[in-house]
Amino acid sequence: MPVAKAVRADLERASWIRRMFEEGRRLREADPSLPVYDFSLGNPDLEPPEALLRALRELVADTAKGTHAYMPNVGYRETREAIARKVSREHAFPVAFSDVVMTVGAAGGLNVLLHAILDSGDEVVVVRPWFAEYRFYINKHGGRMVEAGTGPGFALDVDAIRRALGPRTKALILNSPNNPTGRIYPRSDVEALSAVLLAHGEATGTSPLLIVDEPYRDLAYEGAVVPPVMDAYPETVVCSSFSKSLSVPGERIGYLAVSSRCADKSLLMDALAMGMRTLGFVNAPALMQRAVARVADEKADIASYARRRALLLEAVRSAGLAFAPPEGAFYLFCEVPPRGPKGRAADAARAAASGAATGGAAAAESPDVAFAMFLKDYRILLVPGSGFGMPGWARLSYAVDEALIRGVAPELKAALGKWRE
Amino acid sequence: MPVAKAVRADLERASWIRRMFEEGRRLREADPSLPVYDFSLGNPDLEPPEALLRALRELVADTAKGTHAYMPNVGYRETREAIARKVSREHAFPVAFSDVVMTVGAAGGLNVLLHAILDSGDEVVVVRPWFAEYRFYINKHGGRMVEAGTGPGFALDVDAIRRALGPRTKALILNSPNNPTGRIYPRSDVEALSAVLLAHGEATGTSPLLIVDEPYRDLAYEGAVVPPVMDAYPETVVCSSFSKSLSVPGERIGYLAVSSRCADKSLLMDALAMGMRTLGFVNAPALMQRAVARVADEKADIASYARRRALLLEAVRSAGLAFAPPEGAFYLFCEVPPRGPKGRAADAARAAASGAATGGAAAAESPDVAFAMFLKDYRILLVPGSGFGMPGWARLSYAVDEALIRGVAPELKAALGKWRE
Repeated sequence: MPVAKAVRADLERASWIRRMFEEGRRLREADPSLPVYDFSLGNPDLEPPEALLRALRELVADTAKGTHAYMPNVGYRETREAIARKVSREHAFPVAFSDVVMTVGAAGGLNVLLHAILDSGDEVVVVRPWFAEYRFYINKHGGRMVEAGTGPGFALDVDAIRRALGPRTKALILNSPNNPTGRIYPRSDVEALSAVLLAHGEATGTSPLLIVDEPYRDLAYEGAVVPPVMDAYPETVVCSSFSKSLSVPGERIGYLAVSSRCADKSLLMDALAMGMRTLGFVNAPALMQRAVARVADEKADIASYARRRALLLEAVRSAGLAFAPPEGAFYLFCEVPPRGPKGRAADAARAAASGAATGGAAAAESPDVAFAMFLKDYRILLVPGSGFGMPGWARLSYAVDEALIRGVAPELKAALGKWRE
Repeated sequence: MPVAKAVRADLERASWIRRMFEEGRRLREADPSLPVYDFSLGNPDLEPPEALLRALRELVADTAKGTHAYMPNVGYRETREAIARKVSREHAFPVAFSDVVMTVGAAGGLNVLLHAILDSGDEVVVVRPWFAEYRFYINKHGGRMVEAGTGPGFALDVDAIRRALGPRTKALILNSPNNPTGRIYPRSDVEALSAVLLAHGEATGTSPLLIVDEPYRDLAYEGAVVPPVMDAYPETVVCSSFSKSLSVPGERIGYLAVSSRCADKSLLMDALAMGMRTLGFVNAPALMQRAVARVADEKADIASYARRRALLLEAVRSAGLAFAPPEGAFYLFCEVPPRGPKGRAADAARAAASGAATGGAAAAESPDVAFAMFLKDYRILLVPGSGFGMPGWARLSYAVDEALIRGVAPELKAALGKWRE
């Protein structure tokens, strides 16, 4: 068997993603003339801002030599300077260019960081529901993911976090705005979290690293603001990307910004540079580094996400679905309503058949998976909450065309009527 | 201590790279008016071919939507088709687009592959001298690097490889043209290697994967040809990049091509796609994927490497240095000549002082490190062979300006005269 055991286990765990993807493909192929209401993908579909496209045109027209060559593993100085200015402003704390590492997206940044800090058995605390990939990242680098529950509406539960901290806690990942809930953790939560982490540090001698994963920082609605974090807690590393703000997720351009107050910061910076080599990234793509240096503060037309959000909220409310307050990002996390008596028997039969087919009955039994499978017969695709550690919920992405949201409203209502029968 | 133990060990092992880098910086700053003969970096310094630059200009002028969005983790179909055609031709074996994964350079490709196949304690055989990063990659994914020695002139020693194979052998990495020796393994060696691997597979029930790491395939001189491998052995995966052929190392665009004859190939392809996610690559940069789809067969002006090679060979011969036959790539691997009696005492003193300063005397004692330190006083920088598992040798890269090679000739001669005193 040529494939590693851990990877086979990952494939098993991630199988629902593939399943939704395959269902979507099957639907599209079965009748290409009908719409597929695919709300399963967190794929920014806006066009990049004209300023970025212009920067790219200028950069590739430039005949300066060596612009596609290697540069230091941590990136170009001018790019790191632009990021340092941006993060300093967003986090109300001065960041030097030398404390920035340009990475292959935020996902690449998280991997390089976890690689740099985790010894086998170290723990990383995440808040539930968590971005589905965190578990894969943490396990890959020998760590153990520890979950902390949240309060009503998925607000931060600082007491639950305190209970999740232990002698092996190396870091905590704070994802704000959150994927999948859209929750933005307010300043008061950040300060309470900081106090808990500092107290843990005083008690144990080591303060956990606070990893602020914020690729959705620019996507906040109805006046919501994502507060600074780096000024509130010394051991902070910000991880982000331009995938959403500039709508270039395929180009893989992100960064890590390390607080100057991190313990052994210089060694950590060396470890991050080494991690860029060891994991095979080498450096963030050169051309995109030079582009974002010019347009780090530009934004895609993110107001259109606000319009889509309003439309989807209306559709979901009208269908009678409960959901978490979606303050940011482009996701709506909905509670799966109770199944009506009529459908329960049919579901049980379907789950048994599906479980036998995939070799794993557990996932098929989860109500959110049953809900997703039910909705796909209405050509509606979403992601079961089990993938985010939250069975009984489901994620809809509104990074989709407005027409699709308008179109899904009556379908969703009809489907839910049947579901509740 | 926030940095993982394994990473601290890596930093220690890689310290000679940093040391050469720091020495170069010190030299440049000490007197910017003097040349630094820096032959330490394997950084392709040619400009990309006009066809690629034109493709980039056309692509960024194109107003089609979604061109910077996510695509499947394995890459665009049109790009994978172009790679499949290229690899089919180069390896005399039909490769389907569905067996290609676009990666973040060859380094990213190797990481994704090793991640996919290695369980903890699995062994990967490499041929000595080996590319310095292999050890970091293999260790990262829980593997153990096993070295096989080479014959005269660093020719493949198939008997040594046979002895290196064991019950835990999962793969062998064949790097041809080789970094650091420039050696190209001829077809007869490939066939002998295939026979040994097949025999091992018959004896143990599992044939090792043959990983062909060939980013320098297009850099072969004096009529040398890099032979196909995939047609000779069923369990072959080709890993390469456009960093050298198109001279775009900073853009991080490479690929894996898996033989259709690999055992459990379909599972392996799933594992590679999953690896793109788990390691945080997600996908190879979109724009460069679309560019190489158009110009996969174009080449930078690699004839200029041939001119530089000839110049450096002349300089090195004239200085009386012995070297391995440099058939490809852009490296010259030279034997460190014996130190003369006069200098030995001085070296010992310097090694002791340097060992005390860096906290590790072992590296400082190696003759190639002493040689590198000696040459840097002549403003000549190269890489000690210890970094490639071959103390007593040193690597010079000729990916440098011709003027630098012309300039170094008398300096090298003078330095070697002193070294031999």
